[in-house]
Amino acid sequence: MQAHEDGAESTVTQAMSASAPGPMTALAKRARLAARTLATSPTSARDRALWAAAAALREASDTILEANAKDLAASTAKDAFRDRLTLTPERIEAIARGLEDMADLPDPVGRVLEEWTRPNGLRIRRVATPVGVIGVIYESRPNVGADAAGLCIKSGNAVLLRGGSESLHSARAIHAAMQAGLRAADLPEDAVLIAPDADRKHVAEMLGASGLVDLLIPRGGRSLVERVQKDARVPVLAHADGLCHTYVHAAADHGMARRIVLNAKMRRTGICGATETLLIDAAIAPTLLPSIVADLAEFGCTFKADAAAREIVPTLPAATEQDFRTEWLDAVLNIAVVDGVDEALDHISRFGSSHTEAIVTADEAVANRFMTGTDSAVVMWNASTQFCDGGEFGFGAEIGIATGRFHARGPVGVEQLTTFRYEVVGTGQVRS
Amino acid sequence: MQAHEDGAESTVTQAMSASAPGPMTALAKRARLAARTLATSPTSARDRALWAAAAALREASDTILEANAKDLAASTAKDAFRDRLTLTPERIEAIARGLEDMADLPDPVGRVLEEWTRPNGLRIRRVATPVGVIGVIYESRPNVGADAAGLCIKSGNAVLLRGGSESLHSARAIHAAMQAGLRAADLPEDAVLIAPDADRKHVAEMLGASGLVDLLIPRGGRSLVERVQKDARVPVLAHADGLCHTYVHAAADHGMARRIVLNAKMRRTGICGATETLLIDAAIAPTLLPSIVADLAEFGCTFKADAAAREIVPTLPAATEQDFRTEWLDAVLNIAVVDGVDEALDHISRFGSSHTEAIVTADEAVANRFMTGTDSAVVMWNASTQFCDGGEFGFGAEIGIATGRFHARGPVGVEQLTTFRYEVVGTGQVRS
Repeated sequence: MQAHEDGAESTVTQAMSASAPGPMTALAKRARLAARTLATSPTSARDRALWAAAAALREASDTILEANAKDLAASTAKDAFRDRLTLTPERIEAIARGLEDMADLPDPVGRVLEEWTRPNGLRIRRVATPVGVIGVIYESRPNVGADAAGLCIKSGNAVLLRGGSESLHSARAIHAAMQAGLRAADLPEDAVLIAPDADRKHVAEMLGASGLVDLLIPRGGRSLVERVQKDARVPVLAHADGLCHTYVHAAADHGMARRIVLNAKMRRTGICGATETLLIDAAIAPTLLPSIVADLAEFGCTFKADAAAREIVPTLPAATEQDFRTEWLDAVLNIAVVDGVDEALDHISRFGSSHTEAIVTADEAVANRFMTGTDSAVVMWNASTQFCDGGEFGFGAEIGIATGRFHARGPVGVEQLTTFRYEVVGTGQVRS
Repeated sequence: MQAHEDGAESTVTQAMSASAPGPMTALAKRARLAARTLATSPTSARDRALWAAAAALREASDTILEANAKDLAASTAKDAFRDRLTLTPERIEAIARGLEDMADLPDPVGRVLEEWTRPNGLRIRRVATPVGVIGVIYESRPNVGADAAGLCIKSGNAVLLRGGSESLHSARAIHAAMQAGLRAADLPEDAVLIAPDADRKHVAEMLGASGLVDLLIPRGGRSLVERVQKDARVPVLAHADGLCHTYVHAAADHGMARRIVLNAKMRRTGICGATETLLIDAAIAPTLLPSIVADLAEFGCTFKADAAAREIVPTLPAATEQDFRTEWLDAVLNIAVVDGVDEALDHISRFGSSHTEAIVTADEAVANRFMTGTDSAVVMWNASTQFCDGGEFGFGAEIGIATGRFHARGPVGVEQLTTFRYEVVGTGQVRS
């Protein structure tokens, strides 16, 4: 919504006069033309493209693995970073199946979101439409290119991909399969375009492509996301931080609180929906906190605790203020003792990242106070913050999680890759 | 969605370190605190504030008129510009009644937009929530401050107003009445704040207030709107241009086409939903265009026509390409003859501003092709483009029209001043 939305032509002129256009501008112009075709293409053509792309991926499996071997040979990445970059026949099959699953989702385009009739007989309906051209900036995971392209095709959008330098060969091989899918469905292959190389100038060009790129989705580490959020002149869907809180209220069931905190922190520590900070009511902490700490310690969790928590469990290491601002993405839990729901909300307002917060309580009034008192995208009552996920929400597939205040918040699936228009149907009405 | 959404605290620090904070930063911080109270305030309190503000406006009528007299004495504006600045007892009464009408609207906050249950029993609902702090930058019309403040109070938002230098005294007198309304309802008066003066630096500060101001709404001339759209680091709801088209298709009913074109152009020529360009099919133009031209000429309209139109009505002045890019906001109509719906869509894609377009036709397939083929916020079939208006849509009151691709598009009423959160209600579920 930030960029202004002149006709493509005039905005292209502006973008070009502002600074010499690079290759991404030319690609974005091609993508915009393709987007017009995608936007009015039948559901069946887009689904056919996804099936065909899945087949093309399987067929090109050897070529993709060779390209990936080149990337791996050139990479100095180790451990988890190397693993992210690595493709295997199984992973290629999983990507292909993912595309087929997208084809099975209902078409998000054309849904009538609202409909009403005015006293003068005008029928007004709000109808879901594709966004246009979506720019996806990602780092080393080669599958992101296929997933993002699939979600964009499904939702009638064109996509402009810019992968990281580490996965360049893999990304290009996958891109070729996506374009083969489009061709097989008689859709323009320019609906999925990729940067010619990993030059950083391409990112800058995409960030400034107001009027050419309608939406940017950065997928990668915090520094990439923050740079995009800071410098983009185009709307961005993303989250930089997932500093999620679980608040155990005085009226919580002890067993439920222990299960939820253990799961929210330890099920997978590296995802953005993992709880980083436990807030626990002073009234319940003396009896409950020692068990929670013991549960988590058993699975290797370490702790950063405030003074009140350390009075209850003296062996806990002390937390600094900075710890409460830190998204550990690891087996580390911040702990603060609070005096009721308002103090919990104050803590979240001060340290939170508007991602996901949970309360455990048997008291419905307190739960409602908590859920209406944050500005987070997702609030949960008696459930684990790890449920913040497109699949768990029933969206089928997700391109990421957004924490901004507009458009999509929380998991971003195919429905969230649409916007809408008003269609007004009359019988010759004029305004008096 | 463009700004990143850290906790208020950390973002405040960032905003402050980026450049020395001015008075708007301090006001925005106060507004954010007030916004937290507004967001959870009961419907009745917000409605009471609107009733009380209306009463305060009526009570302060003399004071407001005196303030307005000062503004008028200092102003060199003439004609329509002077009229915009002028308040009368009747206009103050209209502003007050407008606030009371807003109080009668249903509460847009807390609406359950969607609701579903997952197989694991998690209940997920999408609930409308206030946006937070809305910045409204306006020019000479003093009523905009009251209307914007009223819509923001109704939708649970805090608002930061920055009026133009011409209406400074009037704006401050109106602001005092709005705050009196908030106090009468025991709501924080910081929910409606106004810039201390009309220093242009305040605008720059608001445009950069990422994390402090959640949404900017510029209300005024094109140069103001374009500057805000270009420089804001905060999401913007606005439209710079309303270059609306009415396309008369070959299968149009002649009488209906004549009535709609006359109304779409001439009912009020100065509003953004007025048609600026008539596109007419070559097949129907020879018989229909002369009558349309005669209808409009009778009401003083002049024309800018392409070569094909001038072959049919040789007295029409020639249009330049620039004319087709011009929002006249006056009794001037561009005319182009096209060869079918696709050529009409190409013209709109090239010259349009994504605002409102209409087609007149008896052919449903062509109408659907047209309505799905633009990226405009509003598309109409057999109706006048002048219906693009919050009141006509049934929204009660509007703060403006948006042509961006995200969040609100078309008329922006109180529902469009909300965003949403997901509320997930469980019974102790953990993720496997």
